[in-house]
Amino acid sequence: MNFAMILYVLRYIICCEGILMLVPLITALAYKESAALSFIICIALCILISFPFYLKRPKRAELHVREGFVTVALSWIVLSIIGAAPFVISGAIPNPIDAVFESVSGFTTTGASILSELDSLPRCMIMWRSFTHWIGGMGVLVFILTVLPMTGGNHMNLMKAESPGPSVDKLVPKVQSTAKILYSIYVLMTVIQIIILIIGQMPVFDAVTLSFGTAGTGGFAVRNSGFADYSTFNQAVITIFMILFGVNFNVYFLLLSRKFKKAFQNEEVIIYVAIILVAIAAITVNTVHLYENVGYAIHHSAFQVGSIITTTGYSTVDFNLWPSFSKTILVLLMFIGACAGSTGGGIKVSRILILAKTVRKELHSFTHPKSVKKITFSGKQVSDEIVRSTSVYMVAYSVIFIASILLVSLEGRDLITTFTSVVATINNIGPGLEMVGPAANFAFFSPLSKLVLIFDMLAGRLELFPMLLLIYKGSWKKF
Amino acid sequence: MNFAMILYVLRYIICCEGILMLVPLITALAYKESAALSFIICIALCILISFPFYLKRPKRAELHVREGFVTVALSWIVLSIIGAAPFVISGAIPNPIDAVFESVSGFTTTGASILSELDSLPRCMIMWRSFTHWIGGMGVLVFILTVLPMTGGNHMNLMKAESPGPSVDKLVPKVQSTAKILYSIYVLMTVIQIIILIIGQMPVFDAVTLSFGTAGTGGFAVRNSGFADYSTFNQAVITIFMILFGVNFNVYFLLLSRKFKKAFQNEEVIIYVAIILVAIAAITVNTVHLYENVGYAIHHSAFQVGSIITTTGYSTVDFNLWPSFSKTILVLLMFIGACAGSTGGGIKVSRILILAKTVRKELHSFTHPKSVKKITFSGKQVSDEIVRSTSVYMVAYSVIFIASILLVSLEGRDLITTFTSVVATINNIGPGLEMVGPAANFAFFSPLSKLVLIFDMLAGRLELFPMLLLIYKGSWKKF
Repeated sequence: MNFAMILYVLRYIICCEGILMLVPLITALAYKESAALSFIICIALCILISFPFYLKRPKRAELHVREGFVTVALSWIVLSIIGAAPFVISGAIPNPIDAVFESVSGFTTTGASILSELDSLPRCMIMWRSFTHWIGGMGVLVFILTVLPMTGGNHMNLMKAESPGPSVDKLVPKVQSTAKILYSIYVLMTVIQIIILIIGQMPVFDAVTLSFGTAGTGGFAVRNSGFADYSTFNQAVITIFMILFGVNFNVYFLLLSRKFKKAFQNEEVIIYVAIILVAIAAITVNTVHLYENVGYAIHHSAFQVGSIITTTGYSTVDFNLWPSFSKTILVLLMFIGACAGSTGGGIKVSRILILAKTVRKELHSFTHPKSVKKITFSGKQVSDEIVRSTSVYMVAYSVIFIASILLVSLEGRDLITTFTSVVATINNIGPGLEMVGPAANFAFFSPLSKLVLIFDMLAGRLELFPMLLLIYKGSWKKF
Repeated sequence: MNFAMILYVLRYIICCEGILMLVPLITALAYKESAALSFIICIALCILISFPFYLKRPKRAELHVREGFVTVALSWIVLSIIGAAPFVISGAIPNPIDAVFESVSGFTTTGASILSELDSLPRCMIMWRSFTHWIGGMGVLVFILTVLPMTGGNHMNLMKAESPGPSVDKLVPKVQSTAKILYSIYVLMTVIQIIILIIGQMPVFDAVTLSFGTAGTGGFAVRNSGFADYSTFNQAVITIFMILFGVNFNVYFLLLSRKFKKAFQNEEVIIYVAIILVAIAAITVNTVHLYENVGYAIHHSAFQVGSIITTTGYSTVDFNLWPSFSKTILVLLMFIGACAGSTGGGIKVSRILILAKTVRKELHSFTHPKSVKKITFSGKQVSDEIVRSTSVYMVAYSVIFIASILLVSLEGRDLITTFTSVVATINNIGPGLEMVGPAANFAFFSPLSKLVLIFDMLAGRLELFPMLLLIYKGSWKKF
């Protein structure tokens, strides 16, 4: 383990987090809130802890694969703990475990909250919660890549560990340049959404915070009334942007590069859109009797489907009250998740596609025993290594999933609450069903369950292996 | 498609089923029941339909892999439909879909019933239900292999399609001899169980029928009171035999051949026993407050754990009333299932083991990027082909599972009923939770849901691919 380099990166992260806290600090000052003090303390602490890092750099700067993964896992843990500090210091969330839960839920873009009362919370805290979504959405290390000068293949090892999906595409030869392009698209789309929402007469504070949550596919609400106060227009705008942020960002890069044909041939995005349309249609038919007219049924189906498949977790209605068929569809969408290379969580459409294709290939091999058919994806051959690692991913996912359900079931809650609390956190969605439904929150869980769900949120966001390597004893042996 | 040969095998099956119906016919005559007539009609029909088969054999006797699989799938469907006829003809189950459901549930050793009233049913019908478990447990085609003279590799293609687990071991060089050994062990163990139960003062009829259900890991009860009337001794005997029938039969062959060391080194059986012991311990601790003393808590935990992991489905208590933690453990055991090469269903312990080892291998490869570690099982290397096909199996399993849940959820029942009805049928267990709990039955489902669950029972028993190939259009193309 190159501890010197890991420490160097961690300090870099802490320093960055201090800088990022200027956003809620400015909010606090703008609203003249006393909670500003907690951010000032935290920023001071960040600077203090990270201080020596820019004075000397470790001589050996390389990070091996396992070191890259462990670094990413530790970075996210440090990030979350420091991110929880303002909540505790200001007294907004006095319990440290609750504060870390809220912070992890923010950075991992889950959006599962332990808070029931938002309107009386200082604005700067609401801003910080939503802003953590925005930071976590694109990935902290991707951000760091754009600024941290590192040598050789290190970036790829870090980016691999943090990027959603079965493989990482470099858009341009240099990893840093790729990261910069991705961040530019991210910033641009967020700004466009804020502007459209403001045009739709949403208060500026809500427009900014909700756009942060949409862009990161997070899902923290910003007022007690949820989305009831916003116009149908603004709800529709959020629906569209949620779905847009669930698309593989490479597609936007292709569009910007005017490679329209290639962009529209992306198989994952085609299937992603198809799943969304089918799900909206099925739920609309199943719930139309609950709403005044078909238009509203489509509107609410689309919002909930977009919110759940992209793992955002916003809700305009309490889908816990929907019929079984619609709830079943939503639970399935929770597992599917968004596209690889987007800010969304879940298993990812591309993984589902690769897995489905392996079954079709198997059936084909029964009928044509001598054919050697390869699996293709968007016209390109998928390497055996990716097929294999996708299967391994699914198994690791099941292992974490089952262990979590067993631990949470010790609480003795009903099975649906237990099951969906894990589904909603490991897939970084936010709300589940029953006691963790959209109208409820996660406050009632025991500290043990909260720790399990914190682990699941981190494991889900980092695509399992960084967190698994952290607790795998073989990682810490010398070799 | 070698239709001539497929038809030949199907006729052979129908003839065999006619002969097997002598067992309930004799029961009917012994009890002087008028339902004897329905079996006489069915036997006559079987002889009539199958009549020409022994006159001429098809010239081309080979079956390709896909033909073998399709033959197995069709055999089981034909077997089930004819098996349902006595229920309909006698009026015991007038509705044909219900009768097929009961028959499929019997042959696939599921034990999910649509009957609520057993005591007023003719004894011969109870005998036929339990006897179908016994027939289906070891596999119809394995039976046929012992008598049907076929050439070359055909047997292996049929046996592969019907045998539970990721791979088929030949105990001795000839497939027929292997099948004969397996059947001898099966018969012997069944007889021993019947004798012990009779010694334990169980009525002979109950001892025979329940032993058939135990041996096939089926699970149909034979009286309204379930297991309440039987002594604790007899319940314990059934617990032990359920667990014994969930063990890989190769182990018994090794024991009979006095290869004790090899028998006790079988990794799958060791893990199988370990899972059972841990589950019993956990459930005992969790439910001890529900019973008079620790002894009873252990007794009922052991019975239910043995019943569920082996996918038998008998129950001495209504585990639907247990706390969440215990119910969660049972649901997990439903998925795990028994050992490969036993009569039990589920995913199988060996598959779970292979999958778990792929994750460990993956973590190892992160920390030792250059090592080429192979997965081993009971000391032997597992081929990449088996690892791959195990993953493919899991994906196919998920696809069928999800599609079934979606279709059943159209009924609008609660999510746990929907979910566990599919879990209990695709894993060939029998009871689920809530509306399909041990104290309930499957009668209330709509015809659509029943058809879906019938498909799941067959798919689960035949390890998915025969049923999938049947509905895969590529299977029916010429090549």
